[in-house]
Amino acid sequence: MTVRFGVLGAGRIGQVHAAAISSVPGAELVAVFDPVAEAAQSVREKYGADIRSIDEIAASDDIDAVAICTPTDTHADLIEQFSRAGKAVFCEKPVDLSVKRVQECLQTVAETKTTLMVGFNRRFDPDFRALKSAIDAGKIGDVEMVTITSRDPGAPPLSYIERSGGIFRDMTIHDFDLARWLLGEEVETVQAAGSVLVDKAIGEAGDFDSVNVILRTASGRQCTITNSRRATYGYDQRLEVHGSKGAASVENVFESRVTVAGKEGYQRPPLVNFFLERYMPAYRAEISAFVDSMENGTTPPATGQDGLMALVLADAAVKSVAEGRVVMVSEILG
Amino acid sequence: MTVRFGVLGAGRIGQVHAAAISSVPGAELVAVFDPVAEAAQSVREKYGADIRSIDEIAASDDIDAVAICTPTDTHADLIEQFSRAGKAVFCEKPVDLSVKRVQECLQTVAETKTTLMVGFNRRFDPDFRALKSAIDAGKIGDVEMVTITSRDPGAPPLSYIERSGGIFRDMTIHDFDLARWLLGEEVETVQAAGSVLVDKAIGEAGDFDSVNVILRTASGRQCTITNSRRATYGYDQRLEVHGSKGAASVENVFESRVTVAGKEGYQRPPLVNFFLERYMPAYRAEISAFVDSMENGTTPPATGQDGLMALVLADAAVKSVAEGRVVMVSEILG
Amino acid sequence: MTVRFGVLGAGRIGQVHAAAISSVPGAELVAVFDPVAEAAQSVREKYGADIRSIDEIAASDDIDAVAICTPTDTHADLIEQFSRAGKAVFCEKPVDLSVKRVQECLQTVAETKTTLMVGFNRRFDPDFRALKSAIDAGKIGDVEMVTITSRDPGAPPLSYIERSGGIFRDMTIHDFDLARWLLGEEVETVQAAGSVLVDKAIGEAGDFDSVNVILRTASGRQCTITNSRRATYGYDQRLEVHGSKGAASVENVFESRVTVAGKEGYQRPPLVNFFLERYMPAYRAEISAFVDSMENGTTPPATGQDGLMALVLADAAVKSVAEGRVVMVSEILG
Amino acid sequence: MTVRFGVLGAGRIGQVHAAAISSVPGAELVAVFDPVAEAAQSVREKYGADIRSIDEIAASDDIDAVAICTPTDTHADLIEQFSRAGKAVFCEKPVDLSVKRVQECLQTVAETKTTLMVGFNRRFDPDFRALKSAIDAGKIGDVEMVTITSRDPGAPPLSYIERSGGIFRDMTIHDFDLARWLLGEEVETVQAAGSVLVDKAIGEAGDFDSVNVILRTASGRQCTITNSRRATYGYDQRLEVHGSKGAASVENVFESRVTVAGKEGYQRPPLVNFFLERYMPAYRAEISAFVDSMENGTTPPATGQDGLMALVLADAAVKSVAEGRVVMVSEILG
Repeated sequence: MTVRFGVLGAGRIGQVHAAAISSVPGAELVAVFDPVAEAAQSVREKYGADIRSIDEIAASDDIDAVAICTPTDTHADLIEQFSRAGKAVFCEKPVDLSVKRVQECLQTVAETKTTLMVGFNRRFDPDFRALKSAIDAGKIGDVEMVTITSRDPGAPPLSYIERSGGIFRDMTIHDFDLARWLLGEEVETVQAAGSVLVDKAIGEAGDFDSVNVILRTASGRQCTITNSRRATYGYDQRLEVHGSKGAASVENVFESRVTVAGKEGYQRPPLVNFFLERYMPAYRAEISAFVDSMENGTTPPATGQDGLMALVLADAAVKSVAEGRVVMVSEILG
Repeated sequence: MTVRFGVLGAGRIGQVHAAAISSVPGAELVAVFDPVAEAAQSVREKYGADIRSIDEIAASDDIDAVAICTPTDTHADLIEQFSRAGKAVFCEKPVDLSVKRVQECLQTVAETKTTLMVGFNRRFDPDFRALKSAIDAGKIGDVEMVTITSRDPGAPPLSYIERSGGIFRDMTIHDFDLARWLLGEEVETVQAAGSVLVDKAIGEAGDFDSVNVILRTASGRQCTITNSRRATYGYDQRLEVHGSKGAASVENVFESRVTVAGKEGYQRPPLVNFFLERYMPAYRAEISAFVDSMENGTTPPATGQDGLMALVLADAAVKSVAEGRVVMVSEILG
Repeated sequence: MTVRFGVLGAGRIGQVHAAAISSVPGAELVAVFDPVAEAAQSVREKYGADIRSIDEIAASDDIDAVAICTPTDTHADLIEQFSRAGKAVFCEKPVDLSVKRVQECLQTVAETKTTLMVGFNRRFDPDFRALKSAIDAGKIGDVEMVTITSRDPGAPPLSYIERSGGIFRDMTIHDFDLARWLLGEEVETVQAAGSVLVDKAIGEAGDFDSVNVILRTASGRQCTITNSRRATYGYDQRLEVHGSKGAASVENVFESRVTVAGKEGYQRPPLVNFFLERYMPAYRAEISAFVDSMENGTTPPATGQDGLMALVLADAAVKSVAEGRVVMVSEILG
Repeated sequence: MTVRFGVLGAGRIGQVHAAAISSVPGAELVAVFDPVAEAAQSVREKYGADIRSIDEIAASDDIDAVAICTPTDTHADLIEQFSRAGKAVFCEKPVDLSVKRVQECLQTVAETKTTLMVGFNRRFDPDFRALKSAIDAGKIGDVEMVTITSRDPGAPPLSYIERSGGIFRDMTIHDFDLARWLLGEEVETVQAAGSVLVDKAIGEAGDFDSVNVILRTASGRQCTITNSRRATYGYDQRLEVHGSKGAASVENVFESRVTVAGKEGYQRPPLVNFFLERYMPAYRAEISAFVDSMENGTTPPATGQDGLMALVLADAAVKSVAEGRVVMVSEILG
């Protein structure tokens, strides 16, 4: 069986998924849509995809699944449209910036009994998966404490930040998902602190650029998340899980494995700097997992519910900073 | 000039300081006190010290300074007695478990114009000092985020925990001090989470064994502290400081520098397991710094005020967990 | 311009090059030959290549270059045939096991003025290239000492060893090439030691499984090479270059970046175990460099002369062990 | 029982041993000799030792053992004098630069049935001992290949080099001893290469500054040694042992455990730069082992025979370079 894809949106992340679909066995790129003709054209040339409109793709008999790579505020509507059209849907995170809208959207998906997978790419990073496998194999016993460090090399443009929903919903949301994945229990409470240390303009836009979060589950497992919109040494992405029998951690990805020694000491290169470079194997593995879940009729490894819960944690973090207190997840979920 | 010492208390930590005093140039061990005759005798035999009572030491003309290594609840009284006797005082942390009592005690010390240094030994660890020097040299720019990981190989006896004032005042207090030292600004707010994951008996005693803390200064600098009373892999002691121009970190101390490779992979040994082994160079450097400050008439590098502020942060953490909210340091200081 | 390829030989390494040619921009896989129908068929199915005979490929107007991936004893004849046919030739190492035959073959290539590149894939490993770039950028000053460690996870089948020309010509030949590349000067003398420690049958076949080599250039630069046909911890591939201003080294490639800590210590996984996995990026970069050299009319980055000289060093090593003495390269070159 | 020591020679290494003797339990420093009054005086002041002449020490009833730290050309005579005087002797390496003279000297020691230990301090380095323990515990199976890297931060003064017996007898001799210790079999053949890359004056003095050596035992175990008189990044001291079941290695000692990350990458400090700093724990452990062997009546862990064999390997290396061939150890031993 081959899963035939339409890609909606041929911007940066759409190009990534088009490339992934083209290279994953069992997947085939059939059509692409983008309001910008050059963008769609570029995918056609590189991968031989048809250019079609959204409605044409929804109506196409030769399309089994879509990858939604359009702007965030179109995600929920497109998920609903394509679920109703009977297509399996892979959607870039987030489903929506509103918890209520996500809940409605998931309700629609549930009714159509179609597949929805949300693009939490980091779960598919080979090193992170190896960490998860070690935990699942019992190598560190019961999970007690998770430590997630995620620092971007630099802040995105202000125009992006203004539409992003804020750092917790835009950046930390990946870490909230990883935390849920690694804690092995639902989070019960959230507390967070936010600062503006990198760029005052970010603060003037009502956002933070430096945050810390503590998550806690009902049984007392905890997770700390450290985020910064600045890291001169590259894209800093580390995980550490401490358990009753040991601990497991994932090191960063360096530009090369070369060390140069001299009078000043021993120097390794900076980290790979760009998320596409850092997570390219993860993007491929993600599409492959989506295809596998369709072929096997299994639940995809990052569901709409996962998308909802990460957003709920983000909302709880926003509320925690605003009100200076620990926020229960149940307060947000309603 | 030689600083002539009396050591009060010849238990485990008293023995450490007796050894340090005996080996540091410019320091001389003259007398020792311990209510347990064998303990005092052991110091006399190893280092040639006289055995004297507390009052005799306070009255001795041949004693310039004392190292207070007695149980915590005697610290404040002894500090006051020896300050009034005109002796310089080195006191193991904490000064007292009551903020109010510490404040009174410091008032007495201030009136006597004597020297008081509090035993925050970690500031004197050679690797931690190298980290601080790199920061002070501007190598990472402005400090933004501090990450402190401190995990004990195992929990102390319950009887100890019951008298300890709780994990924040007993264990995290070292990290609160390091945080203040590294942040370079006073902490303004504290939030914390506590769990019982290691030993239910600790919870029944009203304490936690697994905690996370977020500290925040007025300008927005933040610090996270992760503590656990369990670490199968040894005494886990790491620092990481992220700044505007880079980051600096200190690796753990392993039992040896040997790696053994085989079918299962590459194995390094566990960490050194015991705080005395891990921090022995720090204990020596600490006494040396005390002696230097006396010789040069300078403020010691860890003052009574440092002892007070670390305790205040601990009290704020306790209150934060109890009330589920961010606590201002000013609430505790009064 | 697109370079249109025929691949000769569709065994393991032929499949690797077919995949590389299919994925490298500017390269196109047009035809494949293999005496085993299934092997050729497999390349046709995966990459859409025509199946043609050797002579058909030589006569094809739509073929610009061939990749020779057939058994070693056919290399020299095929190079000559395709050079005379006006095709650019990429040939797997070695050109031949006889220095004299290689010299003749290179003479033919020179007369036809066609391009010949020899498959020393390791020069194209991204980490090794980063090392070379650091050296070329002057970061370690003048090269003084090169240390090459190369250990295979296990010995190849005896049948392979018997036809291989011996460990120096089969395995060390890669390291001889790297040594020449990194030393920046021609090697003048060779001395070597050989042992049978892994498998007595290898010794009975007249070969060694554990060897060390010292190379020396006219100006005194030196290189040591350590080879073993056994490494329980994976495919051990390290380079280290010591110079007048510093040193540069390349670390191994581990199966993942995960470390698991526990009572026994800190464990990283074994190394990637298989040369295809270890050097896949190098195989792609190698084909890309061949295509670039054709497009730009430049000398390929691993020439027939490089192939000759690596073989000469191998012959010198064989002679050194046999005669228990330092062998001059000029003795072999004649 | 306490071993009472006389120290002969109070130069740099004599001071090291005086300090070690003063701090090792079971050892006591009683007397010191040095022709330079200030040097002897300095030991008296620091450690309370008597100043005596060589003959007085030999005749002293309150001296059980001597540590010979005088110039090399006096070692053999002093060993003989003190062995005949019934003292146990710890002698800095080498016993003598002449194999014949060493053999005579060991004959005398054998006749007197006194204890002789030679100062191969590296065997007592805690990390090297941990490596040896791992090997002895069978963790890497049978030893196959040893790799020793030893590079000095800089060359000693020419005047020193001229009296040193050459790099093989002065510097590599430590590595020859480590090789014998780690190979677990006597070396049968030696081959070596020498270059002058650091300082032409060293070449003009008839010595090399950059050498490589291959040792081979009867069963085929091999060891490579790499030496340089230059290393801008500190005192480079590494061991690696490859065996049938795995490999074990020892990392260098860095100035601190701090890493600083920034735009240029991740920087660790240089290595500790000075052999006294690097090997101070080894010097103490060495004296302790000498004392233990006296107390227990056991053979000391580095005997006169060890001193002889390391010198024999050095002589073989000199001959190998001079004659361009593999040299049998039996050629030197006679």
